[in-house]
Amino acid sequence: MSSQTSTTQPRIVEVRRNVLRHNDQVAAALRDRFKRAGVFVASLVSSPGSGKTAFLERTLTLLKEKGYRPAAIVGDLATDNDAARLARSQAPVKQITTGTLCHLEAAMIQNALEGWNIGELDFLFIENVGNLVCPSSYDLGENLRLVLLSVTEGEDKPLKYPTIFNSADLAVITKIDLAEAVEFDRTAARSNIQSVRPGMRMLELSSKTNQGMDEWLAFLASAVAEPRP
Amino acid sequence: MSSQTSTTQPRIVEVRRNVLRHNDQVAAALRDRFKRAGVFVASLVSSPGSGKTAFLERTLTLLKEKGYRPAAIVGDLATDNDAARLARSQAPVKQITTGTLCHLEAAMIQNALEGWNIGELDFLFIENVGNLVCPSSYDLGENLRLVLLSVTEGEDKPLKYPTIFNSADLAVITKIDLAEAVEFDRTAARSNIQSVRPGMRMLELSSKTNQGMDEWLAFLASAVAEPRP
Repeated sequence: MSSQTSTTQPRIVEVRRNVLRHNDQVAAALRDRFKRAGVFVASLVSSPGSGKTAFLERTLTLLKEKGYRPAAIVGDLATDNDAARLARSQAPVKQITTGTLCHLEAAMIQNALEGWNIGELDFLFIENVGNLVCPSSYDLGENLRLVLLSVTEGEDKPLKYPTIFNSADLAVITKIDLAEAVEFDRTAARSNIQSVRPGMRMLELSSKTNQGMDEWLAFLASAVAEPRP
Repeated sequence: MSSQTSTTQPRIVEVRRNVLRHNDQVAAALRDRFKRAGVFVASLVSSPGSGKTAFLERTLTLLKEKGYRPAAIVGDLATDNDAARLARSQAPVKQITTGTLCHLEAAMIQNALEGWNIGELDFLFIENVGNLVCPSSYDLGENLRLVLLSVTEGEDKPLKYPTIFNSADLAVITKIDLAEAVEFDRTAARSNIQSVRPGMRMLELSSKTNQGMDEWLAFLASAVAEPRP
């Protein structure tokens, strides 16, 4: 068994750098705008099928019940299935269809905000395309980035996708109700997260049983009670 | 709820087109070389955590037991964990570490083959980076592309990631032993695969219980018994 590292073509590296620079500028403007509007913005990244939409639907519903005003923007290559699921919470929802693009970019968020008065929102959630690689480099102007990892995916994912874990602020272990059925090694998963990003905050959740949701909602409540970063 | 489509910058589209053209040329040369060497090449794509490595380890082990000569190349952003797991089968294994690159390219396969006499192999398996988006556009010179979908990911994934399902030849539903625990809707999953790619061959498998492995091995045996496409 041997190992080798890729070399990417110089020209595509240069173009990527310019795209990222442009994205950073748009994201910085968005972050300013969110701050002035007093809305707390959290984005969600994960593999396809880690439970982003189920978690977000539950979050929107519970926040609405508590009198908060949340909204969501959701990205997918195709279909507006996720927007339809999220809209059941009665929160405002917009779908971004990316075609073959593997991640959301700040300009897409900017466009999606058209027609919304974000000053009337407490929370805006952005659900990225299901992809544990590409979204890591694109700042969306969010205050908080969540990376979700379901118990069915294997405990080694933080080690194998370190960049996305490094770009996130909070690790959410989802589908915790299935932990026993899949022999999930909680200690190994937590230790792998911490080895990639020491000190990273972690939550264990189930959107099915609501386990961990109280802690998550208390975290969100404290985030809007404090001045934004 | 409203919808919008992304617009990608013209310059990056042009660069991507050139990269893909170059990749297609390298892949065509690889495919020729594989044909001359008499080795059947299958690649595996899926989300992170769908069970590619477990499935491949089982496949390599069973093929070795039957007297075949399989080998594997495995791509990951970081770590050689997967190569170490696959090497337990005693088959030759190489790891490609892609850094931040979200997919394998044909030139990386070409480089990884250095030092191997592929004329001594019956099967070569290529495990792509865990990503249900980006690998779809990159031909690796393979004879067969498998897309894996685990029962824990949700039945709607073919509809949400249609491009990768369209680029694959065989859909493998993995972790079928967990189907009941996660209330997997088999009919919906199969119908979603067929609606994206009518007539696509499908297998249901468990690397844990070996369910479906006989059918898969019979498929492989018939593939090397026939002339290559």
